[in-house]
Amino acid sequence: RGTARALLVNSGNANAFTGRAGELSCAAMAAAVAEHVGCRIDGVMLASTGVIGEALDPAPVLTNIAGLAQTAGPGGWQDAASAIMTTDTFAKYATRTARIDDVDVRINAIAKGSGMIAPDMATMLGFVFTDAHISPQALQRCLSRAVDQSFNAVTVDGDTSTSDTVLAFATGRAGHAQVHEPSDKRLRDFQRALSELLTELAHLIVRDGEGASKFVTVRVEGARSKRSARKIGLSIANSPLVKTAIAGEDANWGRVVMAVGKAGEPASRDRLAIWFGPTRVAVKGEIDPDYREPEVAAYMKGEEIEIRVDVGIGRGRDTVWTCDLTERYIAINADYRT
Amino acid sequence: RGTARALLVNSGNANAFTGRAGELSCAAMAAAVAEHVGCRIDGVMLASTGVIGEALDPAPVLTNIAGLAQTAGPGGWQDAASAIMTTDTFAKYATRTARIDDVDVRINAIAKGSGMIAPDMATMLGFVFTDAHISPQALQRCLSRAVDQSFNAVTVDGDTSTSDTVLAFATGRAGHAQVHEPSDKRLRDFQRALSELLTELAHLIVRDGEGASKFVTVRVEGARSKRSARKIGLSIANSPLVKTAIAGEDANWGRVVMAVGKAGEPASRDRLAIWFGPTRVAVKGEIDPDYREPEVAAYMKGEEIEIRVDVGIGRGRDTVWTCDLTERYIAINADYRT
Repeated sequence: RGTARALLVNSGNANAFTGRAGELSCAAMAAAVAEHVGCRIDGVMLASTGVIGEALDPAPVLTNIAGLAQTAGPGGWQDAASAIMTTDTFAKYATRTARIDDVDVRINAIAKGSGMIAPDMATMLGFVFTDAHISPQALQRCLSRAVDQSFNAVTVDGDTSTSDTVLAFATGRAGHAQVHEPSDKRLRDFQRALSELLTELAHLIVRDGEGASKFVTVRVEGARSKRSARKIGLSIANSPLVKTAIAGEDANWGRVVMAVGKAGEPASRDRLAIWFGPTRVAVKGEIDPDYREPEVAAYMKGEEIEIRVDVGIGRGRDTVWTCDLTERYIAINADYRT
Repeated sequence: RGTARALLVNSGNANAFTGRAGELSCAAMAAAVAEHVGCRIDGVMLASTGVIGEALDPAPVLTNIAGLAQTAGPGGWQDAASAIMTTDTFAKYATRTARIDDVDVRINAIAKGSGMIAPDMATMLGFVFTDAHISPQALQRCLSRAVDQSFNAVTVDGDTSTSDTVLAFATGRAGHAQVHEPSDKRLRDFQRALSELLTELAHLIVRDGEGASKFVTVRVEGARSKRSARKIGLSIANSPLVKTAIAGEDANWGRVVMAVGKAGEPASRDRLAIWFGPTRVAVKGEIDPDYREPEVAAYMKGEEIEIRVDVGIGRGRDTVWTCDLTERYIAINADYRT
């Protein structure tokens, strides 16, 4: 939380686990940006994504920063989103408008991510920019709430990146009186718009998941708490056997039962119910007597799959999103570095 | 813990999440076995492995049990190990001899498992038979210790089976005086042999892991405790990105760093060291200055890969075993049911 004037992001090298050399690269790049933008060095934010553990050479940044600083201007979101891609197959950016008092404020955001996606705090890289006039504390609160239901609720492969970063920047130029308190009700529409925006980006990351052929929504209800529902949802969403079954267009609900069990959260075997899309396949601890496989087999051929599970304990519910696990995920990741 | 006279195992159907119908199948099968073996119904142990959630028809057991009971005899371990296979590509059985007092006792064991392997208590199915004369409590203690360092220390895909079962049976015919107390020092050699035996079977399961092309040993040291080392080891062993890198013969140690981080256990980035086989690739939070990639690249082409990690915190250490993650795992599991 504080003020910032510039953001520099590189892709291709995560500058993670690079020790003292990595720190020196950061210092050199931040100093160059500060000089050309005309700000203090601590007003420069840095983020990096790519290979872990190889020293990041700052030279390409140092030689190009003067030109970048000159041509920087409003817009250019697609270029920025494209520049931070690694294994992504398309650029991820989105926008929303919200009302604060009687003023329209704009929120733009870019993100990148495709593999090593199981955010534990933020995700790969996401950057939010708004002209709203909001204090750092209030903006952080809005951001944390939005991230919890968006980036933190998706998984591609259960592997958490070393470089998870989400930053939000507010220029304050929208023209309304500043919102200072995180609890201020004037932020209600801004919060809604920000949450929608980050959910859109989080879904784009899952849709671009490495090797993904299907977008999967996992809804868990009847859990002891929202937190418990999240844990069960992620256990299902991260199970390689559930994900390969979906890749094979097989409504293998027995594997969903397995994933509920291994989550280690309270659940009632004898009250458990499972749906694939509109069809209930299991109820009260066994196969639904009305279940007809052909109906679900047709549903599994679609590109959007929803699994719903009622664990039969309480009122906790949550939703997470993931993708299927295909042979192409293996091919991409067996060859990434070499 | 108690006494048993017969064990009946079927493969092809796990009889899990089958509700009342599943219970009735169990009752019918146990009654038939009891009748033909000539024992009480509670002296019959049952285990099942295969598809989850489909009712198990007891008829094939009921029509064949008389013949099975007649032909049962000593030996036949390979036939038994073959009969309980599902996606396994070879039968898993092993034997050891131990000394109790001055008497040789024999321990034979069979197991099955290939996918859905991340034991949380036992593993898929494992059965141990000995002629040692040991009380149920003492045998259970020996079994629990052996399982903790064998079946519970392997993972293929991080998915825990619904049907994990390990049972040990002792006939007591070896001829030495009974060992009653779990803490009796006369059990020392028996414990050693049993632990070796189950470790051999656990390794066979990993070597036969679905789609596996390499056997991977993950040694963690310098952790806060043995328990912490186990958690870090399983985080590495279950990471799809570490496993796909090994499949691609890529010494991608950055992914090992990632997996140490996501374990959430105490670790020191600036004291972390990583070895692939004999070669140290990272030390003190960055790449080893003496690291030469061609040497490790040659090592990665082998079928036995060892990853060693010193997390630089304490004296806790543990070892777990896994396999790589290949495109064939996906092919096997996208098509399993259909």
